[in-house]
Amino acid sequence: MDYQLFAKKLETISAIPITAFHDDLSVNWEGVKENINYLIEHELEVVVPCGNTSEFYALSIEEAKEEIRRVVEYVNGRALVVAGIGYAVPTAVELGNYAKEAGADAVMIHMPVHPYITSNGATQYFKSIIEQVDLPALVYFKDPNVSDDVLKELAPLEKLVGVKYAINDLPRFTKLVREVPTSHNIAWICGTAEKWAPYYWNAGAVGFTSGLVNILPSKSFELLEALRANDHKTSWDVWEYVLPFEELRAKYNNGNNVVVIKEAMEAVGLTAGKTREPVAALNEADHAEVEALLETWGLKTTQNL
Amino acid sequence: MDYQLFAKKLETISAIPITAFHDDLSVNWEGVKENINYLIEHELEVVVPCGNTSEFYALSIEEAKEEIRRVVEYVNGRALVVAGIGYAVPTAVELGNYAKEAGADAVMIHMPVHPYITSNGATQYFKSIIEQVDLPALVYFKDPNVSDDVLKELAPLEKLVGVKYAINDLPRFTKLVREVPTSHNIAWICGTAEKWAPYYWNAGAVGFTSGLVNILPSKSFELLEALRANDHKTSWDVWEYVLPFEELRAKYNNGNNVVVIKEAMEAVGLTAGKTREPVAALNEADHAEVEALLETWGLKTTQNL
Repeated sequence: MDYQLFAKKLETISAIPITAFHDDLSVNWEGVKENINYLIEHELEVVVPCGNTSEFYALSIEEAKEEIRRVVEYVNGRALVVAGIGYAVPTAVELGNYAKEAGADAVMIHMPVHPYITSNGATQYFKSIIEQVDLPALVYFKDPNVSDDVLKELAPLEKLVGVKYAINDLPRFTKLVREVPTSHNIAWICGTAEKWAPYYWNAGAVGFTSGLVNILPSKSFELLEALRANDHKTSWDVWEYVLPFEELRAKYNNGNNVVVIKEAMEAVGLTAGKTREPVAALNEADHAEVEALLETWGLKTTQNL
Repeated sequence: MDYQLFAKKLETISAIPITAFHDDLSVNWEGVKENINYLIEHELEVVVPCGNTSEFYALSIEEAKEEIRRVVEYVNGRALVVAGIGYAVPTAVELGNYAKEAGADAVMIHMPVHPYITSNGATQYFKSIIEQVDLPALVYFKDPNVSDDVLKELAPLEKLVGVKYAINDLPRFTKLVREVPTSHNIAWICGTAEKWAPYYWNAGAVGFTSGLVNILPSKSFELLEALRANDHKTSWDVWEYVLPFEELRAKYNNGNNVVVIKEAMEAVGLTAGKTREPVAALNEADHAEVEALLETWGLKTTQNL
């Protein structure tokens, strides 16, 4: 396994697919398949089932496994599949080993959901999972109370190929990137999507996560290309264009994060369905904002996607 | 089922047992049994396996089930067993139904670990679990970003017998208690233990959770009796006595919460073992503080417990 080469392949958009649900909240696998095909047809190169936009924390462990297995099958070699895994160490290892068997290319280890985390304990948490799962691994780092020393200690591990950093403390991120030797081949990924990508990029990120790609992949790629080309004018223009959508997702302490995407997808004829608990449908005002924004974007029909 | 009577039985200390681990981090069931017997011998009336002090989030789902089953067996009718359940709705329901079959008396539903929570979605989350599990239920409420309207909407549900409130915004808690009709028979439990119990009690709480009971149950009961008797002098004296321990547990954004208890237990000859990831052992200075405190408390031998 050439981990260095693998890390290079992460220098792009990490697409986090939604998990489509039927009205009774069972998983709509046909809808998941449609969505994955949509992402691949729009040239996404990295697909992350069981990410936060996939409502990972609303899936049972068995459903999470099925999502990983099916996404590998639907992607069918046309992109890298990075499977989200998490919870307690034994559960994360179980999911990781399942992902390996199912043919996933890598795992993304979620931040532990444990209410008590010590920085040394977090290092042990990630290390234990990375060691027990025979796949390249990314760490999803989002708890500002946990020290970046965790990442500095994990960085020399050969299997650690990327960090999805989601703490919007940019000087902190910048220091971290500069302190980890480039010889460790860590792909630094902005974990807070298009709204924050330009700042992270400027500080050393080489990719960003996106939920927006489920509905408007062209703009995400426009941003990626502009960032790569160091074209500030274009990148801030795209940023401004997508900002209202991202800000609507950020409402209610991010409560709206996924439901905005899903209702937008449904509004333009894609299949997404409802969100599961603990996320409810948008209120009327927010839904009207989604509709208005789709109109601005020229997406009120299923054309031009 | 007389839910009103059941709610009355919660007007006491909710003991959250630790989960003992061997050095290889496998569960030490013999140690769990010892600890449960210790709690029962010290007259704890409500035992909550799979609470946060039990490192619920470090257990696999299968281990969580086994902990519930074994604690019911070890308690053997000598106290109420309130089983902690949580994660995604299907997982929580699976754990709840397992708890029912195993003979638990009630369930305590953890706050969802989902990164995106809307208040309406949280209501649906708890409601869905309460409706699908045939046991009295408590809601563990700890996310300040979620509105108390959730609890007001859930309060009329007959099966909801208690709320473990763990947001230390006391005016917020007071308003909530006053706005929910007493006819709904909700036992309001201070979810942040001895350090906060006097304030919650003053505002209408009738019980409090405790991790301290795993090592110093006499003081927890002294506090309970003082609060019941409205004996401020004694309650603040006990509060001051246990405060250094609780503050040591609160260090590192609560990272120390469980490991302080476990290292104290080991120091006095009880069985607790290590904590699992993402919680590491205490550093030397903190461990020395634990030892010094045990000395102050006269607990440096296994006598006088």
